Amino acid sequence: MNNTHLLASFKEKAAVINAVMEADLAIVESPLLAEIIRHAIFQGGKRIRPLLTLLAASLVGPEPADTARLAISFEYLHAASLLHDDVIDHATLRRGAKTANTIWGMEPVILAGDYLHAHAMALASEVGGPTAMALIGRATAAMVESEFLQMHNAQESILSEENYFSVLMGKTAALIAAACEAGIAHNQGSSEQRKALRTYGTNLGLAFQIVDDLLDYLGDPAKTGKAVGNDFQEGKMTLPLIKALERADALDREALIALLKATPQERTSKLAFAHGIIEKYQGFALARTQAESLLAEALAGLAIFGEAAAKEPLAGLAHYVLTRDK
Amino acid sequence: MNNTHLLASFKEKAAVINAVMEADLAIVESPLLAEIIRHAIFQGGKRIRPLLTLLAASLVGPEPADTARLAISFEYLHAASLLHDDVIDHATLRRGAKTANTIWGMEPVILAGDYLHAHAMALASEVGGPTAMALIGRATAAMVESEFLQMHNAQESILSEENYFSVLMGKTAALIAAACEAGIAHNQGSSEQRKALRTYGTNLGLAFQIVDDLLDYLGDPAKTGKAVGNDFQEGKMTLPLIKALERADALDREALIALLKATPQERTSKLAFAHGIIEKYQGFALARTQAESLLAEALAGLAIFGEAAAKEPLAGLAHYVLTRDK
Repeated sequence: MNNTHLLASFKEKAAVINAVMEADLAIVESPLLAEIIRHAIFQGGKRIRPLLTLLAASLVGPEPADTARLAISFEYLHAASLLHDDVIDHATLRRGAKTANTIWGMEPVILAGDYLHAHAMALASEVGGPTAMALIGRATAAMVESEFLQMHNAQESILSEENYFSVLMGKTAALIAAACEAGIAHNQGSSEQRKALRTYGTNLGLAFQIVDDLLDYLGDPAKTGKAVGNDFQEGKMTLPLIKALERADALDREALIALLKATPQERTSKLAFAHGIIEKYQGFALARTQAESLLAEALAGLAIFGEAAAKEPLAGLAHYVLTRDK
Repeated sequence: MNNTHLLASFKEKAAVINAVMEADLAIVESPLLAEIIRHAIFQGGKRIRPLLTLLAASLVGPEPADTARLAISFEYLHAASLLHDDVIDHATLRRGAKTANTIWGMEPVILAGDYLHAHAMALASEVGGPTAMALIGRATAAMVESEFLQMHNAQESILSEENYFSVLMGKTAALIAAACEAGIAHNQGSSEQRKALRTYGTNLGLAFQIVDDLLDYLGDPAKTGKAVGNDFQEGKMTLPLIKALERADALDREALIALLKATPQERTSKLAFAHGIIEKYQGFALARTQAESLLAEALAGLAIFGEAAAKEPLAGLAHYVLTRDK
């Protein structure tokens, strides 16, 4: 399957996922609650998590008919966490549209996040039983713990690579890994198969975030929809910068650290300078290599599935993560 | 068992519940997260929900050893919802202490609520299986839906008794009923027994809230720790006022409605006047009678348990709800 066909098949599956969510969300009674949830769910989104649940399940064989209902619980959990994140960050824009908190204010949006969160867990329990719930319980705990780790890290001037990855594990990788593992568990996969999918999901999640970090410095704003150097302007230390700091000589290192302690305005005016130092110490190249090796490891684990046709989309998804420009 | 013995036995059970929560919460990793959760859980609280799970389970026979672990999930869900409520309301005091959002700010408190919420559901699933999860799923959905109903009602100048009870069903009664029903389901109670406990919990929850409304007007601030007439000052329509409005003549009715549209300051200065009108139309007495008949109905349903000794604490709890002065 070439890339175009693959993306077309993903789009087809995403349409199925959307239809299942549409039908499922009919249970929401309050019109305002329904409106906020629909805004959170249907205002864009690539459906990567539920897609992974479906693809993982099909690795073992034809997936049970209710797999899509289990899959959407991961999209709901993701959407619930974005709703709360945007309230916390006072974010005004997401995916090019006004955030829910900008439109409706804090109160109903916190509650809508709670609703989606509870509904997702009840749904996962109903369809996936105790196994799915245990996976989700661990993932949601990891998500919150990582936010606290991130707050704690914010007090330090330099972020170690270890701390960076610890945050990422909870922030992005835990839920993606759970979505993968839940799919295979739902189709009665073995513990070895579950482990392979957990590794795949974890590494895909980490690589996805590293590529996000790279796009923030190197992406085309016309495609990403975001200004270049946003992370640096906010003083956020991501992998390219961390890699550069590890390798920089005393002078360059001090210059970078001084900038991280400066104002956002100063950082914006010195973006090209910072970019140059990161480049000089191969921060971008090293970060990309790390994303590549994470994905290689993710795919190596899938060898146990032999020549299963369903492996191809998972490999394709990994390739897409690496090569995407938005 | 007399009242003193009963309260002593409740305190004993509450101590067990506290110990089980202490042990369970050791899994929290982040020190700040643990601190916020401990503040939310151990800063007072009567443990009514987990107590009800334990008492309900023992109606059928000796309860399984893990019932306490199922029971605490209801205290967690309650605490999680209070954390988010206080953020939403910008509340500064709860149970005589500073609220978590006052101490730590909005960000970590929203996240701590999310953590408790997810942990409670994972725990309930682990111990109580799909039955407990279905109960909790419905109760948490009802809680959020009722908050939206309340927001919607706030746009109307007069609240009907029907809308008042609809809000209460979700706000207080749904989770209490689920705590009762989960206890009996966990001890393999019949569907008839489950129904009886659901009715008991629902009615106890409604009566509890009505008594709260009465104490707001009639309580002794030295005991309740709250100023008299708080609800009226905030323009909140509770049952005594609703009952009075239903019965008042045109003149008194208009006077009350005008006050509800006035400023909080005006309402405070006219509290004695409003109190007089409510009294004149027996708003307090009618509300109390309704709480009494709800509790009578709650207890009548327990007749199916014959002479089970465990009925006594449930009757005692109902009596306590009616006679409490704080």
